[in-house]
Amino acid sequence: MKRKTRQKVVVLGAGFGGLRACQALADSNVEITVVDRQNHHLFQPLLYQVATAGLSATEVAQPVRAILAGQRNVSVVLDEVVGLDLAAKKVQLKEQLVPYDYLIIALGGVTSYFGHSEWEQYAPGLKSLDDAIKIRQRALLAFEKAEVSTSREEQKRLMTMVIVGGGPTGVELAGAFAELSRHVLRSEFRHIDPAQAHVILVEAGPRLLSHLPSELSESATRQLEALGVEVLTSTPVVSISEARVEVEGRSLNAETIVWAAGVGANSLTRSLDVPLDRAGRLVVEPGLFLAEHPEVFAVGDIASVKDQHGKPVPGVSPAAMQMANHVAAIIHRETEEGVDVPARRRFEYWDKGTMATIGRSAAVAKMGSLEFSGLPAWIAWLGVHLLFLVGFRNKIAVFLQWVYSYVTFRRGARVVIHSGTASDNKGKS
Amino acid sequence: MKRKTRQKVVVLGAGFGGLRACQALADSNVEITVVDRQNHHLFQPLLYQVATAGLSATEVAQPVRAILAGQRNVSVVLDEVVGLDLAAKKVQLKEQLVPYDYLIIALGGVTSYFGHSEWEQYAPGLKSLDDAIKIRQRALLAFEKAEVSTSREEQKRLMTMVIVGGGPTGVELAGAFAELSRHVLRSEFRHIDPAQAHVILVEAGPRLLSHLPSELSESATRQLEALGVEVLTSTPVVSISEARVEVEGRSLNAETIVWAAGVGANSLTRSLDVPLDRAGRLVVEPGLFLAEHPEVFAVGDIASVKDQHGKPVPGVSPAAMQMANHVAAIIHRETEEGVDVPARRRFEYWDKGTMATIGRSAAVAKMGSLEFSGLPAWIAWLGVHLLFLVGFRNKIAVFLQWVYSYVTFRRGARVVIHSGTASDNKGKS
Repeated sequence: MKRKTRQKVVVLGAGFGGLRACQALADSNVEITVVDRQNHHLFQPLLYQVATAGLSATEVAQPVRAILAGQRNVSVVLDEVVGLDLAAKKVQLKEQLVPYDYLIIALGGVTSYFGHSEWEQYAPGLKSLDDAIKIRQRALLAFEKAEVSTSREEQKRLMTMVIVGGGPTGVELAGAFAELSRHVLRSEFRHIDPAQAHVILVEAGPRLLSHLPSELSESATRQLEALGVEVLTSTPVVSISEARVEVEGRSLNAETIVWAAGVGANSLTRSLDVPLDRAGRLVVEPGLFLAEHPEVFAVGDIASVKDQHGKPVPGVSPAAMQMANHVAAIIHRETEEGVDVPARRRFEYWDKGTMATIGRSAAVAKMGSLEFSGLPAWIAWLGVHLLFLVGFRNKIAVFLQWVYSYVTFRRGARVVIHSGTASDNKGKS
Repeated sequence: MKRKTRQKVVVLGAGFGGLRACQALADSNVEITVVDRQNHHLFQPLLYQVATAGLSATEVAQPVRAILAGQRNVSVVLDEVVGLDLAAKKVQLKEQLVPYDYLIIALGGVTSYFGHSEWEQYAPGLKSLDDAIKIRQRALLAFEKAEVSTSREEQKRLMTMVIVGGGPTGVELAGAFAELSRHVLRSEFRHIDPAQAHVILVEAGPRLLSHLPSELSESATRQLEALGVEVLTSTPVVSISEARVEVEGRSLNAETIVWAAGVGANSLTRSLDVPLDRAGRLVVEPGLFLAEHPEVFAVGDIASVKDQHGKPVPGVSPAAMQMANHVAAIIHRETEEGVDVPARRRFEYWDKGTMATIGRSAAVAKMGSLEFSGLPAWIAWLGVHLLFLVGFRNKIAVFLQWVYSYVTFRRGARVVIHSGTASDNKGKS
């Protein structure tokens, strides 16, 4: 086999796309550098469980170094991307300048407030472990404050949670918060009844889970309502301020507000002189590379591309991994066999199905033409997520955690690490 | 049985002493309020494992509310004690004033720098989850910085850890850091060899673990040295500044410095007009109450008392729990049977033994007249700690975690939640 000199592949981001790209190049004669500003790969589909005290932070994250330890052609760098010089083929990190022959941009998405970045301070998004832990602390401390509050109105506000956005993350958060208050915390307080907590899910569009068939949206709504969640559809948010969400004709007072409505691209894309879509994602060729810079690829949530049927590829982890495999195959062929850009194939997306969990035995799922809801969907969801969880330890620990939560209705991760005091009001004894 | 009106028992602190006091009063006709500024009970003997990335924060902590959920005569209040009015029998919390008939002070100890509080910023202690997570992040990020550093001298400093204090916590930290660098991180870096990391344990006294017989101190030193730890005894610290510990005749440059040398009493005691010992602990009668205020008890690390043999009761969790049982028995008798203060018995301490773990298969233990070291001590240590771990879930999860770490030499909790960037220097590629 003919071997060219060792090409440098730089991968930006160690999410599902970036990590898979590294792994898929394990047997290629390339020198890979993967850069992430976090030391861990995050299993984002379960992040909502950290926010709702079902799992601990370390159960949904693994050090990138540990995952790639056995792969000798990869260096892991903990650093942040500051800029890209596409002409000079160099990545500027905070601490060093890294040249590349091939670049794979897999930086993922960020929470988008559709031009209302001032809402972020009142309604955090859920993208990182830090976000999840902050939301968990806020929600748990709200019950503590309510327990010592002497004002009915204040207690009501403290025990109200508003989730903005009826996509999978919003649905999962709403269901998990409802279960937390109705089952997990039930018998632990003396002055409040956590089961009276009020979870409101606000969606601007006409139905939840708009990427699924409408029967599944309806099923999800029914399952959420059975858990006591108030579902408001066709209800755009007008404004958000401290502990308050204004929607048309109604003002929602809530101590805990979570924004699960919008995903935008990493802001780095705007600094590049290349085509972007409306969300700021990189518009790539069907082969997943930039038209003017064929050595630069984009995969995952930061890439905007249509599949073989002309439909936009969705921002989900299986899509990111499939894209990464595609790009790795191109790089492998070109470095090993010396073929050139015109030989690159187009990316074809294989939709394995979509699902969202709502709670204990409650979920909706679509796989090909099959549609499930309730317990069968929940079991499918459980299996698929365990299967995909990165790292042996996490799989076992998470599985036991789930079995335990299921059997006992308790949750193991209800710990506030940076604790404040409980209340804003005085006088109760 | 004669029943008096329901007495109010206020318990300050939900550590081993406070929690046990609540539980031991489960069948008494009293109204208990337990106050802690954290929402969780912390299994402190395993906290060093959180600092060294062996366990996650939620594995060594359980919500106080969850532990006491089934006990109807307890209210849990998340708040901070601001002051005590012993004459008026009231506790001032940040958010409310709580009256009591009986008070159990179980606030535990704090890290003491022997008058050098300015050292704290450079050499954090290990008392809370927050402390442990900060130490873990610092140590893990040090290796990341070393990986991209181009200066040999800087790499050496980054890969050096100094632990001050040769008691059980210091010994356990030193052993766990040595194993982390020599085994766990070994194959994950490309530019540094983590096995070259340098762990230095500094002790002012002539030997480690001074509460154990000298043969066990020697054994601990040998076991630590076998792991590559440099043990410096009879070496008092002269000063500590940023990344530097000065000892007599030598300057130790280390990115990670941990203070495990001193425990003092909670500063609240100094605001009271009652006898204190030199460390600021409350000097109590042999029955564990204040001479001038027999309705006020102190248990655990905040109490200074001699046992039936005239020896000071040590600041360990079994002692705190035994004291709590003693106090609960007194309160139970007085409230149920109407006996009075002169009938109170003295506290008798039953020493169940002492142990310290050093690493995988390495430990020292003393139980009665039996002394162990190496594997038998390690197995004993493992068993005793699992036995005492609070909460079913944690026991199972921690056990699996340990089995997994033991079999694979990996650690599951190596996640930096609030990540910075990797290096202070430029230029490497």
